Amino acid sequence: MEPGDAARVGPQWAARVLPQRLLLLLQLLPLLLSRGLHVAAAASSSGAVAEDSSAMEELATEKEAEESHRQDSVSLLTFILLLTLTILTIWLFKHRRVRFLHETGLAMIYGLIVGVILRYGTPATSGHDKPLSCTQEDRVFNTLLVNVSGKFFEYTLKGEISPGKINSVEQNDMLRKVTFDPEVFFNILLPPIIFHAGYSLKKRHFFRNLGSILAYAFLGTAVSCFIIGNLMYGVVKLMKIVGQLSDKFYYTDCLFFGAIISATDPVTVLAIFNELHADVDLYALLFGESVLNDAVAIVLSSSIVAYQPAVLNTHAFDAAAFFKSVGIFLGIFSGSFTMGAVTGVVTALVTKFTKLHCFPLLETALFFLMSWSTFLLAEACGFTGVVAVLFCGITQAHYTYNNLSVESRSRTKQLFEVLHFLAENFIFSYMGLALFTFQKHVFSPIFIIGAFVAIFLGRAAHIYPLSFFLNLGRRHKIGWNFQHMMMFSGLRGAMAFALAIRDTASYARQMMFTTTLLIVFFTVWIIGGGTTPMLSWLNIRVGVGEPSEEDLNKHRWLYFRVGVDPDQDPPPNNDSFQVLQGDGPDSARGNRTKQESAWLFRLWYSFDHNYLKPILTHSGPPLTSTLPAWCGLLARCLTSPQVYDNQEPPREEDSDFILTEGDLTLTYGDSTVTANGSSGSHTASTSLEGGRRTKSSSEEVLDRDLGMGDQVSRWGTRLELPLEDNM
Amino acid sequence: MEPGDAARVGPQWAARVLPQRLLLLLQLLPLLLSRGLHVAAAASSSGAVAEDSSAMEELATEKEAEESHRQDSVSLLTFILLLTLTILTIWLFKHRRVRFLHETGLAMIYGLIVGVILRYGTPATSGHDKPLSCTQEDRVFNTLLVNVSGKFFEYTLKGEISPGKINSVEQNDMLRKVTFDPEVFFNILLPPIIFHAGYSLKKRHFFRNLGSILAYAFLGTAVSCFIIGNLMYGVVKLMKIVGQLSDKFYYTDCLFFGAIISATDPVTVLAIFNELHADVDLYALLFGESVLNDAVAIVLSSSIVAYQPAVLNTHAFDAAAFFKSVGIFLGIFSGSFTMGAVTGVVTALVTKFTKLHCFPLLETALFFLMSWSTFLLAEACGFTGVVAVLFCGITQAHYTYNNLSVESRSRTKQLFEVLHFLAENFIFSYMGLALFTFQKHVFSPIFIIGAFVAIFLGRAAHIYPLSFFLNLGRRHKIGWNFQHMMMFSGLRGAMAFALAIRDTASYARQMMFTTTLLIVFFTVWIIGGGTTPMLSWLNIRVGVGEPSEEDLNKHRWLYFRVGVDPDQDPPPNNDSFQVLQGDGPDSARGNRTKQESAWLFRLWYSFDHNYLKPILTHSGPPLTSTLPAWCGLLARCLTSPQVYDNQEPPREEDSDFILTEGDLTLTYGDSTVTANGSSGSHTASTSLEGGRRTKSSSEEVLDRDLGMGDQVSRWGTRLELPLEDNM
Repeated sequence: MEPGDAARVGPQWAARVLPQRLLLLLQLLPLLLSRGLHVAAAASSSGAVAEDSSAMEELATEKEAEESHRQDSVSLLTFILLLTLTILTIWLFKHRRVRFLHETGLAMIYGLIVGVILRYGTPATSGHDKPLSCTQEDRVFNTLLVNVSGKFFEYTLKGEISPGKINSVEQNDMLRKVTFDPEVFFNILLPPIIFHAGYSLKKRHFFRNLGSILAYAFLGTAVSCFIIGNLMYGVVKLMKIVGQLSDKFYYTDCLFFGAIISATDPVTVLAIFNELHADVDLYALLFGESVLNDAVAIVLSSSIVAYQPAVLNTHAFDAAAFFKSVGIFLGIFSGSFTMGAVTGVVTALVTKFTKLHCFPLLETALFFLMSWSTFLLAEACGFTGVVAVLFCGITQAHYTYNNLSVESRSRTKQLFEVLHFLAENFIFSYMGLALFTFQKHVFSPIFIIGAFVAIFLGRAAHIYPLSFFLNLGRRHKIGWNFQHMMMFSGLRGAMAFALAIRDTASYARQMMFTTTLLIVFFTVWIIGGGTTPMLSWLNIRVGVGEPSEEDLNKHRWLYFRVGVDPDQDPPPNNDSFQVLQGDGPDSARGNRTKQESAWLFRLWYSFDHNYLKPILTHSGPPLTSTLPAWCGLLARCLTSPQVYDNQEPPREEDSDFILTEGDLTLTYGDSTVTANGSSGSHTASTSLEGGRRTKSSSEEVLDRDLGMGDQVSRWGTRLELPLEDNM
Repeated sequence: MEPGDAARVGPQWAARVLPQRLLLLLQLLPLLLSRGLHVAAAASSSGAVAEDSSAMEELATEKEAEESHRQDSVSLLTFILLLTLTILTIWLFKHRRVRFLHETGLAMIYGLIVGVILRYGTPATSGHDKPLSCTQEDRVFNTLLVNVSGKFFEYTLKGEISPGKINSVEQNDMLRKVTFDPEVFFNILLPPIIFHAGYSLKKRHFFRNLGSILAYAFLGTAVSCFIIGNLMYGVVKLMKIVGQLSDKFYYTDCLFFGAIISATDPVTVLAIFNELHADVDLYALLFGESVLNDAVAIVLSSSIVAYQPAVLNTHAFDAAAFFKSVGIFLGIFSGSFTMGAVTGVVTALVTKFTKLHCFPLLETALFFLMSWSTFLLAEACGFTGVVAVLFCGITQAHYTYNNLSVESRSRTKQLFEVLHFLAENFIFSYMGLALFTFQKHVFSPIFIIGAFVAIFLGRAAHIYPLSFFLNLGRRHKIGWNFQHMMMFSGLRGAMAFALAIRDTASYARQMMFTTTLLIVFFTVWIIGGGTTPMLSWLNIRVGVGEPSEEDLNKHRWLYFRVGVDPDQDPPPNNDSFQVLQGDGPDSARGNRTKQESAWLFRLWYSFDHNYLKPILTHSGPPLTSTLPAWCGLLARCLTSPQVYDNQEPPREEDSDFILTEGDLTLTYGDSTVTANGSSGSHTASTSLEGGRRTKSSSEEVLDRDLGMGDQVSRWGTRLELPLEDNM
């Protein structure tokens, strides 16, 4: 086929040339992204070769292109207005203290409404511009050149479509326009959400419960995936028997479903925890688990996809392929982790060794670019960008944050907070929309009911046995009420959706997608709405009296000044331990928590404190004192002058433990508090007792944060280690 | 052509299926955007129909897709690292107080270097995957379906390519990947830059010089466009004579070139003005002119493109078409203005009548979405989004800003500041890159030299005569040194580039693009570097002594606390008037400025103050006192309770004038200052003299801003009108 034949140019040729031109705007934020963001410069091109063809035809062409451009703007405006409406309603709800419906649930409802309108309210435009079919002889190319009246048009490959769908391609213009490319979720919307989760991780409570969190996230997700996968395989067999299954559905598909649906996202529950100042350790367990199991679920699902038995087309068990999948899992996970950590460390070094903090704008821009480059670096190396971004966020919060100027700290937090907020609400409103606008739904009642049962059983089989084993090792046990709450908080959200929508090509995947969507709806609405009753039913303590509106406003102003966000970090309540330990206050056991989990962290913390923090930040002991003598020169180079200079208030504000110079006993902030059940009665005093600082109450944390400018006098010793988390 | 023929599937088919998949990431910020953001879900699709074809083939296919994905990541990383490098070097320059090279100039240099490397350092990959040609019979469709071995693949139209370029399509993979779609600049990168310009406009000085600024922007740009267009037409005729012109070049093309090159962008000069605290009125004139003439240039260029003589293919003058173009200009401009103003007003109303300011995150998100919707609304209505965004920014700064919470003020400013910074530096580094990677350059020495002469003459013909006429009406004249400085500051930047790259299909447009690129390079490097010498040569006063590093840091901290950014708003110097009035201090004339320009603003200001501000913000006199009695109910509804409540500190902080209750005499902040040439000697006192407040020095402005929390006692009268600009 050579270009050569020529025919007349219809005036309609550019009618659909710029259909997605304006969707480019979507890219303004990681918020709205079109399915085919392809921009044809055809309007320009047509203007340029105007001489050859009729100018009147050009005019008509341009008008049609403009019309299409306008339609795009309108469809985008729909999304923006949807988000605006969500924001206003959220405000109303927050203002009126309505807690039964979270903003994400609200976004879904508005999305549903708009979806219904788009589906049934807009006329189908399939009639007049059905796509043309062109038969290709030999192979598939990415680019096609088409010759029309001597002009050449370039076409790019969009993807394969199944033969049955040929007639439904471009069925409804409006529906097509509001359908985004699935990769958008993975590459644009999830990274800011995940990064923000890592960046705003409350480090103290996270690290204190790290062992449990890791167990829940890794073992728990694997168990959950395996159980759900097997149960669903049973359901699929049942469907085959009753004749409800019209296409193939393999065991690996079931496992894949188990992986994607194991990613919990208790955003609704956590928001209520925040608002009610619920127990911080329970919060840390839930938040930590949900953050990490997102990462596990991504890697797990791609490992399952990578499972390729040696004997083709059997889908039978193959040990070699299985171990290869396990290897892929470990490889991708550790690789992504390394990428994230390395970029974080590089950013920390750059911000430490330059005086960039004099220019907060530059600092913020650098921080943003470096964090973004993690994603690209991981993807370039074949790892998972989203996972890398998570660990990058944690590293940035742990090291880089301490090197940033006060302004940059609040800037970076606020920037990612806004991105996270917009991206999250966009995903949820898109979910609502997708229920009606997505054109490949496969509703299978048996599969859906089976899935609900399976996720319930999967979560139960994951929480209770694991908690039992964890409690064997934990000093303060995870109580039954906590276990029930964790069981209850198994919501599914953005990650499950993004993983499910990523591939909806086959029948099995379409069924999974539809089911996932319904599970997300159900869990966000029902479980989200039931959190407050459940908390009181389970007898889980919430904050000592709600702050009044004035208090809130006052605190917000205070928080603002130090870059602490009330939405991210409720002041910890000291009565959390009592609940952790059982049903009532037990002050005798309060002091036992001192050494809790120390076996896991002692090594890491001493390494982190003695080497990593001094190298990467302006805090910690000088390297000249911690490194062996023969490293003296290196140590002097790497140690920040501020470390020696006691006059300068240390920049580090996120240590998680007390460390005395003599012995490396690790104690935790809250643990030295007498568990008297009221966090409001602590005096904001810093007692220096023989080189050991006992800083305990959250009030004091806030107090010290506010007095940041004039705390020189309070930092007398070299090894001062504040206790609060500043996130 | 019906789908039906089938042949073998080559394993290469998906080799280039996902080539731009990762470029989606670009959309994470309005920063980096790929040319064809098309994402093919082919990897997924291929996985789904695995059964039918060989699984090994699938594997090979996926590997190739991954390889391509990886290459994309690498090319994106290149851009990110380029920006990171720029930021670090900027910091070094700022740190060492290097002023001869601005960050944008630097970004261009790095872009050039990377461009050279990409051009000459990467192997051309044209060999093995030349695009396939496919001949189409009847008309051009947006979608092609191609049947290969019974599988259907969907192709989308990318655009027309000229026949001569067929072989160069996809010539060099890397070069193609770093070439973005021109619309990206217009739809993603320019809006945040322009919005930020409007949002950070220093209103007091802008409005004080509004008449002159409007004259320079509208008349000046029209004059400049016309003169450059005519001169270039002469150059083109000359080129025809000497045989240097190989294709068509019409008079309208010349005028179009005049329009795009008339958009000045003195970013370099203004940065130095800021740093040196140069004269504020000169700053306002230059900044205001450059902001508005961007808008004028866009609309002017599209009006010229819309100029279609009734007799086809003549390109002769046609009165009807000319007036139609003028009508289009007026229509688009006023329409865009209205859209921007309306969205701004709606945002102001929403933020006023909800208590959204209790939730800064929601407020910021709403502000962002509303500002973005301006762009979409304007584009949906057929107006120019970028222009609408500019006026939206000004309206938001004038009204909405006053309703925002303190946190949201700094959040919105910082958010748009970061977006602006990244977008601007990205555009400039892309310019550097484009000089080597853009594949359709047409270097014509005569045209380039002619263009340099033309823009020089055009700017001269615009500044000097206009200044002469403006001085006839101005109380404080625009001195010769100011005129020379304005003449000198005619840099070309992002807007000229974006307009030029938007259409590079024809020979004429390619020549324009190349020339524009060179003009931007030359002006940014040479003029930017020459600003400091020029300022001293022209005897234009700069700030009284540079602030020390400590001062800067201290101030930055202070600025941060109130959301004022030192980079945006240098404290005004009171000696500006002296310079404006001539060469030396002339205190006798100082008081004459009181009534300056009052004829233009008296009406607007009284309307704005009496009606708009009370309706849209929490400040101003209550509407019940300004509206006629029969509007009583409406007035009560619209007036904010805060207005009546003198206990509450008023939120308005951006009035630009003093207004006494008895007579509507307008005076200006700086004008009542005795022109003693030192702004440092003012005491920060607020004297209330018979209902008339005299607040004058910038020090006091800062002082009052900082004391925002406890200024209740200082706001005794109802009609208090602060003087500072808060941006």
